Amino acid sequence: GEALNILLLAGDGIGPEIMAEAEKVLGALALPVTLDRALVGGAAYEATGHPLPPETLAKAKATDALLFGAVGDPRFDNVERHLRPEQAILGLRAELGLFANLRPAKLFAGLEDSSALRPEVASAIDLLIVRELNGDVYFGEKGTRTTPGGEREGFDVMSYSESEVRRIAHVAFQAAQGRAKRLCSVDKANVLETSQLWRDVVIEVAKDYPDVALTHMYVDNAAMQLVRNPGQFDVVVTGNLFGDILSDQASMCVGSIGLLASASLGEGRLGLYEPIHGSAPDIAGKGIANPLAMILSLAMLLRHSGGDEASAARIEAAVAKVLADGCRGADLGGTMGTAALGDAVVEAL
Amino acid sequence: GEALNILLLAGDGIGPEIMAEAEKVLGALALPVTLDRALVGGAAYEATGHPLPPETLAKAKATDALLFGAVGDPRFDNVERHLRPEQAILGLRAELGLFANLRPAKLFAGLEDSSALRPEVASAIDLLIVRELNGDVYFGEKGTRTTPGGEREGFDVMSYSESEVRRIAHVAFQAAQGRAKRLCSVDKANVLETSQLWRDVVIEVAKDYPDVALTHMYVDNAAMQLVRNPGQFDVVVTGNLFGDILSDQASMCVGSIGLLASASLGEGRLGLYEPIHGSAPDIAGKGIANPLAMILSLAMLLRHSGGDEASAARIEAAVAKVLADGCRGADLGGTMGTAALGDAVVEAL
Ligand SMILES: CC(C)[C@H](C(=O)O)[C@@H](O)C(=O)O
Ligand SMILES: CC(C)[C@H](C(=O)O)[C@@H](O)C(=O)O
Repeated sequence: GEALNILLLAGDGIGPEIMAEAEKVLGALALPVTLDRALVGGAAYEATGHPLPPETLAKAKATDALLFGAVGDPRFDNVERHLRPEQAILGLRAELGLFANLRPAKLFAGLEDSSALRPEVASAIDLLIVRELNGDVYFGEKGTRTTPGGEREGFDVMSYSESEVRRIAHVAFQAAQGRAKRLCSVDKANVLETSQLWRDVVIEVAKDYPDVALTHMYVDNAAMQLVRNPGQFDVVVTGNLFGDILSDQASMCVGSIGLLASASLGEGRLGLYEPIHGSAPDIAGKGIANPLAMILSLAMLLRHSGGDEASAARIEAAVAKVLADGCRGADLGGTMGTAALGDAVVEAL
Repeated sequence: GEALNILLLAGDGIGPEIMAEAEKVLGALALPVTLDRALVGGAAYEATGHPLPPETLAKAKATDALLFGAVGDPRFDNVERHLRPEQAILGLRAELGLFANLRPAKLFAGLEDSSALRPEVASAIDLLIVRELNGDVYFGEKGTRTTPGGEREGFDVMSYSESEVRRIAHVAFQAAQGRAKRLCSVDKANVLETSQLWRDVVIEVAKDYPDVALTHMYVDNAAMQLVRNPGQFDVVVTGNLFGDILSDQASMCVGSIGLLASASLGEGRLGLYEPIHGSAPDIAGKGIANPLAMILSLAMLLRHSGGDEASAARIEAAVAKVLADGCRGADLGGTMGTAALGDAVVEAL
């Protein structure tokens, strides 16, 4: 087939270290791909004065898939908001129309005792969080204004339109059709008008998927149920903000945030693939970051943007084998470094 | 001393059942109190057409303390938002200026194996969530509007002003001074301007409390850390929405949401005390609801509005004894009903 064009965006903190391991794995697969690289996040800000430079955005728009490390650097926490490292990932999601964020969570065999949850609770986890990624309070009007009483006030407008909810609902229902056919929509409709519209539209879309069982849950209850009995969930669909919170929470249930990959998809083939953990500045440069979420993100890239299910499954099986064999990095109480874990995956391929 | 005036607001679902047990405990203490009752929530809507009738609000404004059961009834999920049962609790919080919601979470001895978390993780929990209760996206402008493209769009404005953040920050720092002197402020300052103002003001207020160690955490990370290692937290201060989510999540870490009480306080003596669980319509009327969170809410009432630390501590010790003795309701895998649990607490007093 034609070569798949992949843009590598390593970013900040542990980003470059874990990206190197994903490249190792990609190399070992010897697939027809072309690789390019670009600056992003704090690294890009330092070099060019902008976290998402025009050259990077242009390359991103022209490629088939983006493999993304992490952005965030405390040195730039006090620069103007639109120049902070995080704006790079928010900008890419918005500019590329990547509205559907898929975050699967499943306990790998051998990690039953690594979760903070009791083994019998953790073993039951096999869920997919479908997070909307282009709307909500992330992208509404925001700023600081002065109240009538003369005080500073920060504000952010939360909103969802019908079409925004409809398209993410379709993605979620279709994902549920390919799994256990259960979809739980999470909102806060007892307080938020944004949630009420969300719920109304999800119910409308449900008519197209009579084979999927739809339920609704308030976000506070969902956060509780994700601890109490995460095994009850198949696919969860929710907005940008609640999805951010619940997916990070779910990650801990499976033992380490260093194991969770994500795909951010739009209408076409182009997708962005990234571990759900951040740049972890505290451990950057030490060679101890867990590269498995990054490697699993590569698997998602090959599946969704590359249409290469076989290679994706090969990588996932190799990661599972490595974990089943007892390979552990510092995040899981072990001693294997970033490169050693990458090597182990290559070995297992 | 003078009699403490308490207004009992049983509300919906399991509210009346658990309220009866709190009254039993109050009766057994034989304190100088006067009790009054009023309708609230779906029960009030059914009887009067409004979930928070003027008579109830007038009584609430005139009393010393409100003991609140729960509101929420699926029969009224489709009435106009301002008439839904939940508006009663939101209305009381707003009308009475109850801006500080205290939600303590600590594992009771004997419940080490009841948490979904591993016993060694759960045993370390001893935290207090201080949730702001009068602002945020709960009380901003909200509604449905039409987009330029002619679509329906739901919206809710999130905001915090300096003075709103300042007063809750003072409550949290003072609470930390009375505990382990560590305060973690939770926000999403990398995305939200509301959070940035929140963080800036909390840092300003920190100057008045040099003995308290202040840290900041993003809400997604906090949701993860509350599973991974909840023992790291002493006092957590956060806004209305994040506090709603994180406190429900924390409740599961201690075994059952049926054990968590809360106090909602304003500038004066008046406070509202309620279990953090809801009306649980699915088990209402069956006599199996756990009354312990309600009884522990009574203890908080006597402490904060009654200034009666001795009685509060007596109730808390009795609840701890009942649990240590192995008394368990359905929520904790046991067979004791609501009344039997209330009787056991009275017995233990
Ligand atoms: C870095 C941050 C802006 C981002 C988000 O909140 O979406 C991150 O937490 C994520 O989940 O990808
Ligand atoms: C009933 C609902 C409006 C309320 C809230 O969101 O505040 C509840 O969840 C709570 O936490 O007290």
